[in-house]
This record gives sequence, structure tokens and C-alpha cells, in this order.
Amino acid sequence: MLTLYHGPNTRSSRIIRLLMEMEVLNQVEIRVVGLIRQGNIGAPDPANPHPEGKVPLLVHDGTAIRESNAIMLYLTDLFDSPMGIPIGDPRRGEYLSWLAYYGNVVEPVLVGKFAEIDHPAYFATFRGLTEMGQRLAEALADRPFLLGDRFTAADLIMVSAFTFAPQMAPDIPAVRQWIERCQARPSAAALQKHEAVLAAETPAA
Amino acid sequence: MLTLYHGPNTRSSRIIRLLMEMEVLNQVEIRVVGLIRQGNIGAPDPANPHPEGKVPLLVHDGTAIRESNAIMLYLTDLFDSPMGIPIGDPRRGEYLSWLAYYGNVVEPVLVGKFAEIDHPAYFATFRGLTEMGQRLAEALADRPFLLGDRFTAADLIMVSAFTFAPQMAPDIPAVRQWIERCQARPSAAALQKHEAVLAAETPAA
Repeated sequence: MLTLYHGPNTRSSRIIRLLMEMEVLNQVEIRVVGLIRQGNIGAPDPANPHPEGKVPLLVHDGTAIRESNAIMLYLTDLFDSPMGIPIGDPRRGEYLSWLAYYGNVVEPVLVGKFAEIDHPAYFATFRGLTEMGQRLAEALADRPFLLGDRFTAADLIMVSAFTFAPQMAPDIPAVRQWIERCQARPSAAALQKHEAVLAAETPAA
Repeated sequence: MLTLYHGPNTRSSRIIRLLMEMEVLNQVEIRVVGLIRQGNIGAPDPANPHPEGKVPLLVHDGTAIRESNAIMLYLTDLFDSPMGIPIGDPRRGEYLSWLAYYGNVVEPVLVGKFAEIDHPAYFATFRGLTEMGQRLAEALADRPFLLGDRFTAADLIMVSAFTFAPQMAPDIPAVRQWIERCQARPSAAALQKHEAVLAAETPAA
């Protein structure tokens, strides 16, 4: 059994979008939990098994899986779907690299920018928005999506940074067009609708 | 063909240690490249295909794989070895979670501490050293290694944080004992010797 601990319009929303794209949302029980949200509003929910009261958390047959990129990889390895790249495919390494890069680099770069961190060790470790834009532009120079002709979980997690923080989106035509391409997919509107309904149903969350 | 772009005594040293533990170091070509090292010494090496001149970078049959945790997962999925946890094993989700947690949380927490970052958004996103110690202590409460009786790549990457920055190691007996257990393995001493020889051979790197 698969259970996703979820908060509408949070970092876990992209797991919902992934499940929609994979057409397996009906195979996962979604449990909405309370959260500390931006501005220190709300509280961790005792019903949420995440040790820090965060979302997403996926539980599969009793095992808890944390971290968005790990959950996405786990799900795309579990279900056969065009959103993942299986072991043995020559693009598997690039797929793993983008999922890791999102967590290892993109999140620290965006949070560092937001928190106005200006420290040489920080830049040396994570680099900055300029390098992030360059990496995306290089990957998208000759293909519509990060791994080729197909929208995958790598696109989904990477684009989530810029739908969450549009002001951080690289001002590079190939990157802007990729964001538009990702957001023109039916799952973008379906997710918005899904989350609005959930949020209305659970005002405390 | 597998090629690892490497700098002795850097974040890529743990890939060497992983290859040693997997007994496949002889199946990977190690190319030592120049780097910008701590204190802004050195320069990126044009021979290094990493777009930001960093290490590690693994190239497998022409495909570049970046990010330490992605490289470790790729290698433990490629070679059959007790250092990884295969798809279908009930601990696969925990394995992916630790690898992701290292990059998503441990690195930002340690670099944030080093850079003396004190910002509520930073803490809200990554949490701090206290929570990191708690997560390790919980996992190690009833088992010698993070995923059970066996040392895996999850232990290897997590412990690398504290061999690199011992002053950041949680002062919790179960965690201290786990660090000692990991570092008592022959691969810890073998890595030190390997890296000392490489560093002596390549003074410019």
C-alpha cells in the first residue's frame, strides 16, 4: 500500500503532479496533514509520520521514504511509465543527475538567494543562479525536454522551482520556452484544480 | 567504459572509497584533474568535462553523471555489490532517502553552519545540526549501520560529512560509535593511503 502525506500547494504538490502524469494517482492514498507554512503559520501534525513534520512523505508497505527527489525516483522505478528512465537505459545517469542536482544545487541556490546569503563558501559549494541557468540552457539547446523528446520527472521537479518562484526563472529564451512547454501540459492545470479543491476542503491544513 | 574525474582528498574521494568497497576500482579509469580548492587556490582544469570544473564527475560510455549521491546510486545499481540496495528490496526506499538526504539536507546544513547563516527561511527549509543528529540517532538506535547489519553507500556518504568536518559530528554516543565503526573498516585507511599517493604524484592538482 502507498500513502502520501501531503499539504496542498507545497513541495509535495509535485508528487501529486507526478502521480497524475503517471496515471496512478488512484493507487495512492493521499492524506492531507497540517504543516508549518511560510510566515510560521500552522503547526506540525501529529498524524504526519515525517520526523520534522514536513511533506512530502511517502509510505510504501510500512517503509517511509522522504525527500521529493527520492520519492520521485522511487515511484518512477516502481511503476512502469514514460515519466522515468529505467536502469540500463543510456539516459539513466543523466536522469539521476538531474534529480540529485535539483536537491543538491537548485534548492540551496534559490533559498540562498531568497535569504540574501553572500558567502564565498556558499557559492563555492552550490554555485549560483547564473550557473543554474547555464546548465538548463545547455541541456535544452537541442531538445524540448531535459532528457530528450519526452517530459520526465526530471523536467517536473526542475520546473517546480520556477513555478514556485517565477522571479528566479532564468531569463534565457530556451529556458523560458521549456517552462512554457512544461506548464502547457494538462497536468499543470489539473494539479492547480486538485490542490484548490483539497485546500478548500481542509482549511486547517 | 567508466572514467572518474577526481581530485585527491576532495568530495570525489568517497567515490574512490565506494569503488574500493565494491572491489571494482580496477574497472574505472581515474583521471586526476586540477581544481579550485579551499582558500581559492588552484584553477578549473580544461581536461575536466564537469561544466563547473568540479569533482566528482563520472563518465559512462560517453554519458556524464554529476553529483556524488547520483554517482553512488548509479554505481551501486550498475555493479552487483553489498554496498547498494536493489529495486524491489524493502529497504530500497530508505536507501534512496539517505542518499537524497545527504545532498538535500546535510550539505546545506553543514555549509550553512560554516558560513554562519542564521535565517528563518534557511532553517525552515533545511533544518539544523540538531535535527540531523536526531535523524542519525533514531536510525542507529537498534542497528549498527543506517540500513541494518551491513555497511552500504548510505553510511559511506553520510559518514563522509563527519570525516571531512569532525567538529560537526553529533555528540551522541550511538552516532559517535557508528562513525568509529565506519572508519574502522579497511577502506578508510586504504583510501587515505590511495589519496596520499595520488596527491604526491600530482602536485599541481
